[in-house]
Amino acid sequence: MMEHNLSDTIALLTRTPATLNSLLRDLPETWTHRNEGGNTWSAFDVVAHLIYGERTDWIPRARIVLEFGETRTFEPFDRQGHVRESHGKSLAQLLDEFARARSESLEALRALNLQPEDLTRRGRHPAFGVVTLSGLLAAWSAHDLTHLHQISRIMAHQYRNAVGPWSAYLGVLQCAGHSS
Amino acid sequence: MMEHNLSDTIALLTRTPATLNSLLRDLPETWTHRNEGGNTWSAFDVVAHLIYGERTDWIPRARIVLEFGETRTFEPFDRQGHVRESHGKSLAQLLDEFARARSESLEALRALNLQPEDLTRRGRHPAFGVVTLSGLLAAWSAHDLTHLHQISRIMAHQYRNAVGPWSAYLGVLQCAGHSS
Repeated sequence: MMEHNLSDTIALLTRTPATLNSLLRDLPETWTHRNEGGNTWSAFDVVAHLIYGERTDWIPRARIVLEFGETRTFEPFDRQGHVRESHGKSLAQLLDEFARARSESLEALRALNLQPEDLTRRGRHPAFGVVTLSGLLAAWSAHDLTHLHQISRIMAHQYRNAVGPWSAYLGVLQCAGHSS
Repeated sequence: MMEHNLSDTIALLTRTPATLNSLLRDLPETWTHRNEGGNTWSAFDVVAHLIYGERTDWIPRARIVLEFGETRTFEPFDRQGHVRESHGKSLAQLLDEFARARSESLEALRALNLQPEDLTRRGRHPAFGVVTLSGLLAAWSAHDLTHLHQISRIMAHQYRNAVGPWSAYLGVLQCAGHSS
C-alpha cells in the first residue's frame, strides 16, 4: 500500500470523467437507469452524486482546511443533494456536467499550488474530528473508485437472473453493496 | 432485473475496452501494477485475463454450443492463462490487444447472426452442467463488470492507509474481494 502522493491522486481524478463517459454514454437505459431495488441508486444517480461532490465537498473542504484549519468544521455533506442536481436532466447532460465540474476542480487544485508541508495541514470533519488535507485528497480519488465499484455492481445486478449458474463465479454478484 | 437482451449485452461488451483505456492508460504504475497482497491480481493482470477470455472462453464456447449442443463439454477455463498472455508486455500493449481481441469477438458474434431461438440452445459447462447460450452471453458482459468492480477495488486498496478515517465511508474498502 502506498502513501498519499498528490500527482498520483491527480492522475486518477483526471481520468474519471472519461472513464464514466466510455462506460455509460448512450448505453441503453436498462443499464443506466435501473437500481438495485428499493431506495438504492442507479448509475444515473451516481453521476449526479459525483457532480454534487465537486460543488460542495472536495475543493470547498480543501479551502476550509487552508483558510481556517481545525477551527472551522466542514459543512456536513448532503447525501440526497444529487436529487436536485439531476432533476429533469439526461445522463448525457450529467456526464458533460461532471467532466466540466471535475476539470474546474482540478484547475482550482492546481491554483492552490500545494507544497508537501501543506498536505499535513489539519481540518475538522463533522464526523471524524481532526483530519489532514492529505487524507481529504486521497479520499477524493478513492471516492471515485468507490462509485466506479458501485456502478459496476448496480449494472451487473440487472443481469443477476440472466447469467444463470455463472452467478457463482461472478464476484460482483456476491458483493453485499458496501458502496451505496 | 431484466432478462437477457442480446443488443444490451453487445452495447456493454462494446464499451469495455474504451472504459479500461480511459481508466488505466498512462496511469502511474503505483495504481496499475500493485495488487491486494499475496497472490492476488493487479489491474495489469486483470486486463491480461480479459484478453485470455476473448481467445479461449466466450466466442469459442458459443461456437461449441451451436455446433455440438450438450454433447460436447466446454474446455475448462485456465485461470492462470493470462500469465503467458502478459509476459514481457506493457499495459499499453495489453490495452491495445484487448481492444483488438474484443472487436474481433464482436465481429464473430455478429457473423453468427443469432436469432431469438438460438439463444435458448443448450451446451454443457464443465462445472455447471447444462447451460444456455443466452446465459453464456449474459455472463460474458457481467464478467466485464466483475473485473471493472475488481480493478476499482484493487486500485482503492493502494490508498487504504492514505485516506485515514474516510475508509469508513468508502464502500470499495469494505468489499471483501469476491472477484479475484
